[in-house]
Amino acid sequence: MSRDTGAEQLVGTDGGLLRFGPDQPLRLDSRAVLNGLEIAYRTYGTLNADRSNAVLVCHALTLDQHAAGENPATGKPGWWSKVIGPGLALDPAKHFIVCSNVVGGCMGTTGPSSVNLETGRVYGLTFPVITIADMVRAQAMLIDALGIETLFAVVGGSMGGMQVLQWAADYPDRVFSAICIASAPRHSAQNIAFHEVGRQAVMADPDWRGGDYASQGARPEKGLAVARMAAHITYLSEAALQRKFGRELQRDGLSWSFDADFQVESYLRHQGASFVDRFDANSYLYITRAMDYFDLAEAHGGVLANAFAKARHVRFCVLSFTSDWLYPTTESRSIVKALNAAAARVSFVEIESDKGHDAFLLDEPVMHGALQGFVDSAAQARGLR
Amino acid sequence: MSRDTGAEQLVGTDGGLLRFGPDQPLRLDSRAVLNGLEIAYRTYGTLNADRSNAVLVCHALTLDQHAAGENPATGKPGWWSKVIGPGLALDPAKHFIVCSNVVGGCMGTTGPSSVNLETGRVYGLTFPVITIADMVRAQAMLIDALGIETLFAVVGGSMGGMQVLQWAADYPDRVFSAICIASAPRHSAQNIAFHEVGRQAVMADPDWRGGDYASQGARPEKGLAVARMAAHITYLSEAALQRKFGRELQRDGLSWSFDADFQVESYLRHQGASFVDRFDANSYLYITRAMDYFDLAEAHGGVLANAFAKARHVRFCVLSFTSDWLYPTTESRSIVKALNAAAARVSFVEIESDKGHDAFLLDEPVMHGALQGFVDSAAQARGLR
Repeated sequence: MSRDTGAEQLVGTDGGLLRFGPDQPLRLDSRAVLNGLEIAYRTYGTLNADRSNAVLVCHALTLDQHAAGENPATGKPGWWSKVIGPGLALDPAKHFIVCSNVVGGCMGTTGPSSVNLETGRVYGLTFPVITIADMVRAQAMLIDALGIETLFAVVGGSMGGMQVLQWAADYPDRVFSAICIASAPRHSAQNIAFHEVGRQAVMADPDWRGGDYASQGARPEKGLAVARMAAHITYLSEAALQRKFGRELQRDGLSWSFDADFQVESYLRHQGASFVDRFDANSYLYITRAMDYFDLAEAHGGVLANAFAKARHVRFCVLSFTSDWLYPTTESRSIVKALNAAAARVSFVEIESDKGHDAFLLDEPVMHGALQGFVDSAAQARGLR
Repeated sequence: MSRDTGAEQLVGTDGGLLRFGPDQPLRLDSRAVLNGLEIAYRTYGTLNADRSNAVLVCHALTLDQHAAGENPATGKPGWWSKVIGPGLALDPAKHFIVCSNVVGGCMGTTGPSSVNLETGRVYGLTFPVITIADMVRAQAMLIDALGIETLFAVVGGSMGGMQVLQWAADYPDRVFSAICIASAPRHSAQNIAFHEVGRQAVMADPDWRGGDYASQGARPEKGLAVARMAAHITYLSEAALQRKFGRELQRDGLSWSFDADFQVESYLRHQGASFVDRFDANSYLYITRAMDYFDLAEAHGGVLANAFAKARHVRFCVLSFTSDWLYPTTESRSIVKALNAAAARVSFVEIESDKGHDAFLLDEPVMHGALQGFVDSAAQARGLR
């Protein structure tokens, strides 16, 4: 297990890369097996003596293990710096916080851009299709390796929230509390449709090379940028776009051309261009596919409550945002309803916000307050100081 | 003026192609001038003796002049066959119905795929950027050529509705009644964003060749298909997608690949593939641009009511659909509010439908009833039988 030290002292920068030996294959839902799995992860805080203060943070589609502290790739603060830190809902002085890059990702954990140890070549499309349950299975291996039996909390937004639900379904005895934010128990037709547009945009790029671009020295940057642009619109609300950009122009007057006239066009182009610098196109295909395949009820006889039948001791917190049209409150309500049907304990808050789906990553004091209150109450029940 | 006869007898197939001479240039908002403008149009019914029964139907982004009867290109019924026909709201036995392909289009009217008479080459990106007002200006030239002074009604949905509003603003004395369906007085930031994604998808395709694909024997089909797929999602509601497709699979079980597993994926791919057979990529760029530039208030001192200051004698009908998130009811309400402020006469109906934006093209009896009632009442006021 490697270990690196960073400049960020407040939250620490522990973590590293964990490689599993041939005796520890990751068995996937597809029935394929991944040997030599590597998991890139990061930790904040210290595991207490009775190993009861561990929190697993699960990241969303294009995020990574750098939930707090400085992201070494970008030099920017981690994506949940408003939630993880001294005096915040997840406090490294109290909790041992773990965040790992998902299987299929491109930030260090084994994914389609990794080298297949058996062939010596980059996987590309020979990488097996993975699921949310596979991501969670890999996380459980990491948690085992870190010597943690039970997680005080597992928490995440969007795809992270799907992992939270999967943890509760697959490892109920290893979860004390579960926080699912801006998420859904299954991908809707519209969710799948938007992801399919993104995948088609990537695969339409001749530089994708049938998925084999890495071996051929190419990168499907244009296609991936278009995919990101389309997805990015779904992360924001109509109101947020109108408030931020409206019909404001880049310059005085229209260009009468196809240059970016409107600020929203320039913003979207920037989102696309900067994304391709930090993300792998095949990982985008695999992770969107995992989300599309996600349907927690389907694996439990079509009844979502059945997924939580053994999780009624888990303390659940479900949060949604009023303007999130990607994973609208109706999805969170269906989770709450299933938890109620399973007689599980659940707190549910729909938070008034005009920021759309991305609200879970932004400065949302009501969300931070709700998280703080829930975590503090769970900590008391857990007997943490 | 050419004239063709079709198989559809109920509504007739009159129309043809109108070419304007060098003495009749189309002066564009961009200050460019189009010489030798050709307008492809189609008519249904007969102009009455006092020329008081003409109805102009304005089409949406990817539609055409074939509003009723058989579309010769596809062999299918026209796109508004549920509205135009014997006993329907627009009845060729009562009305002289005209529908023309917009300037910038690709169904016969001059557009970027036309040959520039001055150079002998296909325009491509040398075609001037056009606006909704330019489309309406060309329609006015057509109406002049057909000997019509005043339209009994001008009617359209989506981009067609924008043209309707522009007619009322620019030619109030030539409009007796105006019907604006599922539309908006200006394109929102989200509207622009989705269009920009589509344009970027087209321009990312190497076969677009900087817009010069026609001269080079190429076609940016993949990029245009992606653009269409993204746009198509915005035409449907989340509920409609869920009802039509849900998470239904194409086959028994998942493919564990990137094939189309879900029916919604297959449907979208089909939408993309069939679109490129019937539409020109550059026309897609130009027409989306015209829509993005549309802001009726902006041209009238920022006050939408001012656009209708001379239209208070026009009978307006504004219709919206509850599940239309592309042009939501709030947009129609802002039109109604401006018409009220201008002391114009307006009927407004928000129609309960889960079909999303595309509802205006579908079997929506409440819409058909509202149209019929409004048209009949206006006809009575106009002294039509």
